[in-house]
Amino acid sequence: GRARKFLESASIDVGDMVLVEKPDVTYEGMVLDRADDADDRHIVLKLENGYNIGVEISDARIELLEKGSEPRIELPPVEAAEDPELPDVSIISTGGTVASIIDYRTGAVHPAFTADDLLRANPELLDIANIRGRAVFNILSENMKPEYWVETARAVYGEIKDGADGVVVAHGTDTMHYTSAALSFMLRTPVPVVFTGAQRSSDRPSSDASLNIQCSVRAATSEIAEVTVCMHATMDDLSCHLHRGVKVRKMHTSRRDTFRSMNALPLAEVTPDGIKILEENYRKRGSDELELSDRVEERVAFIKSYPGISPDIIKWHLDEGYRGIVIEGTGLGHCPDTLIPVIGEAHDMGVPVAMTSQCLNGRVNMNVYSTGRRLLQAGVIPCDDMLPEVAYVKMCWVLGQTDDPEMAREMMRENIAGEINERTSIAYFRG
Amino acid sequence: GRARKFLESASIDVGDMVLVEKPDVTYEGMVLDRADDADDRHIVLKLENGYNIGVEISDARIELLEKGSEPRIELPPVEAAEDPELPDVSIISTGGTVASIIDYRTGAVHPAFTADDLLRANPELLDIANIRGRAVFNILSENMKPEYWVETARAVYGEIKDGADGVVVAHGTDTMHYTSAALSFMLRTPVPVVFTGAQRSSDRPSSDASLNIQCSVRAATSEIAEVTVCMHATMDDLSCHLHRGVKVRKMHTSRRDTFRSMNALPLAEVTPDGIKILEENYRKRGSDELELSDRVEERVAFIKSYPGISPDIIKWHLDEGYRGIVIEGTGLGHCPDTLIPVIGEAHDMGVPVAMTSQCLNGRVNMNVYSTGRRLLQAGVIPCDDMLPEVAYVKMCWVLGQTDDPEMAREMMRENIAGEINERTSIAYFRG
Ligand SMILES: N[C@@H](CC(=O)O)C(=O)O
Ligand SMILES: N[C@@H](CC(=O)O)C(=O)O
Repeated sequence: GRARKFLESASIDVGDMVLVEKPDVTYEGMVLDRADDADDRHIVLKLENGYNIGVEISDARIELLEKGSEPRIELPPVEAAEDPELPDVSIISTGGTVASIIDYRTGAVHPAFTADDLLRANPELLDIANIRGRAVFNILSENMKPEYWVETARAVYGEIKDGADGVVVAHGTDTMHYTSAALSFMLRTPVPVVFTGAQRSSDRPSSDASLNIQCSVRAATSEIAEVTVCMHATMDDLSCHLHRGVKVRKMHTSRRDTFRSMNALPLAEVTPDGIKILEENYRKRGSDELELSDRVEERVAFIKSYPGISPDIIKWHLDEGYRGIVIEGTGLGHCPDTLIPVIGEAHDMGVPVAMTSQCLNGRVNMNVYSTGRRLLQAGVIPCDDMLPEVAYVKMCWVLGQTDDPEMAREMMRENIAGEINERTSIAYFRG
Repeated sequence: GRARKFLESASIDVGDMVLVEKPDVTYEGMVLDRADDADDRHIVLKLENGYNIGVEISDARIELLEKGSEPRIELPPVEAAEDPELPDVSIISTGGTVASIIDYRTGAVHPAFTADDLLRANPELLDIANIRGRAVFNILSENMKPEYWVETARAVYGEIKDGADGVVVAHGTDTMHYTSAALSFMLRTPVPVVFTGAQRSSDRPSSDASLNIQCSVRAATSEIAEVTVCMHATMDDLSCHLHRGVKVRKMHTSRRDTFRSMNALPLAEVTPDGIKILEENYRKRGSDELELSDRVEERVAFIKSYPGISPDIIKWHLDEGYRGIVIEGTGLGHCPDTLIPVIGEAHDMGVPVAMTSQCLNGRVNMNVYSTGRRLLQAGVIPCDDMLPEVAYVKMCWVLGQTDDPEMAREMMRENIAGEINERTSIAYFRG
């Protein structure tokens, strides 16, 4: 493309330090290669401050400052002597920003590195635990799907079986809460399983990766033997919150304290040096036997209700053979009256339909309004104070465990991994 | 049914005061009739404290205390002398809890009353303004749909044309924010248009209806000539927040301060007696001419992305002739890679596809990750800091205004009613 020719014309390669002059501005930085899908009118520079910038080349002049070498992608494995005094923590990497630094091949934030790299960037971890790293796969978490939940659960199970005293799962933030919920249902664990991620990649000066990883490893050595999410507690780089894996949601597109406990308190506040319990009601290390129930049903629909939604959407899912439906309804657990007949059909076909609320905070209560009562009569399963995303994941898991709709209903109604609180304290709502 | 026989056997009618004895408890209250869809093993009593309770009859003994008369449904219109010093405010009722008291026919909270009843319950309103009431329809807002948005907009337009100095719209809370967004796009207004509702019906001692209505009428006399939502600011019965109609969302199933401004400050804090501006940047009374653009396209899909979502869902909407699609994506505005080809198809067919984030807080940014860039290349319209619900409503409205996909894209990208903030202050996030 044009950008490549522009560089070639000045004998400039990826990795070189250059000066680029435009009519109104001058940049100094390292040339990065471009993604295949990028347009060909820009080159990308990595500036001194760590940020990447795209520069439009039509009116630019380029000058070589210093020849660079193309950065290596492969690095040798980290060698660290085992300290018998320290607990053993396994870090499993699935991808996402936390597991990536800038990919020099594409000039984009793109998952490219393994768990080993986390250690290279965070040698402090070796003071907290003996670290083992393992990459399961390397994807952006928007591409997660139920079969990858299974692979992740198996990898965690394997590490615990092999003696890990705690496991950290590095994961993209987009769908981390779906995966943490999945593992909450699939695994019974005698040790902590801690998900973590980052909103900014670790080559960015403002990265949140380092604190999140250090706190996660600390949490993995704690007494809280549940599946949790460990991410920044505030905008400051001081401490993390440890959230129950079934009570957490990504609530901001970019803030580092994006993960919030919903209808629950965070379990703990964590720093690299210690942990402060905020919610005493957790499963203690060693109280459960290790157990894996990793069958999931992929044909589950997750449907948001909205004014004007057509019942044909639900009908279509039934025709396609979907085996379960989770509705993200309005208010106390409602959807338009026009959906009730087809929901009744689903029920009669043995396809469970569960109801959650797009309010996210609070509890579904389908006895207050006639809509709710009619939905109950049509067979809908109310999901109490379960988050919509958690109810979706749970339905996938439940239908992996049983073919019997009545059994599925019972399991949906039962608190299995802390996803249902008996009573929702309205005080949990910060808004 | 059985319940009816139980009452008949003791010659008890709806409206009678009775004593009901069960082995372990005794109730005194008024007999309410039951909803048609209720089971037949319970009767409903209205207790002294205003609450309704269902009593299982199998082991109950009933005794007549006092014969009552079945409550009238029709009441005479409110008569109030016009005060020429006061502004004229019209209250338009669409239904919902705010416009209902217990429906004695069904024994359930069920919309049954008109705007006139609001006045009967809130005579204080006549000190703030001359009040005109008008019921457009009477539905629970989960049953709202785009054609009702149009009817509501026309009713508001009519009131303003007839000289109202401000309009209050009584509406169910479930989908109030969808309707307030719809009217924000459909109307240019020289006077305030204030949506309000209630989480508890006005016959309940803890009702929030009264404060909400009084503050709304106060806001309707203010200088803020926008479409807004006026609801409790906190759990206490002290003041309301006035939210911009395109920047607000129901965030709790039951709390009275359920409505929250998202990616924005509330415009004002309102009490029955006055208004305190919190955000100076609003449209002043009289600065716009009254204008109605009430065409909407109903064939717009609103789809939540989730791990495992099938591209066939989008394909089906295209096959069915949907003319626009709004995706509630993850993180900065993503969905699984597997959806990108069919999104490209939609774009090629002239069906605009817009992207929002299920994080709700923050701003879509599709230039950070390869997923986002590939979606942009497939033609997706990024919705900046627009709420998913608002983007859905806007797409319905935009496609009512134009058939041209390029024009639709431009309108989606343009800030029309305050739905897009140039810069999102991350400080707006409370979590
Ligand atoms: N889109 C990325 C963002 C992140 O890594 O946090 C992902 O979820 O994988
Ligand atoms: N479900 C009712 C609740 C309320 O009135 O607030 C509605 O939205 O109409």
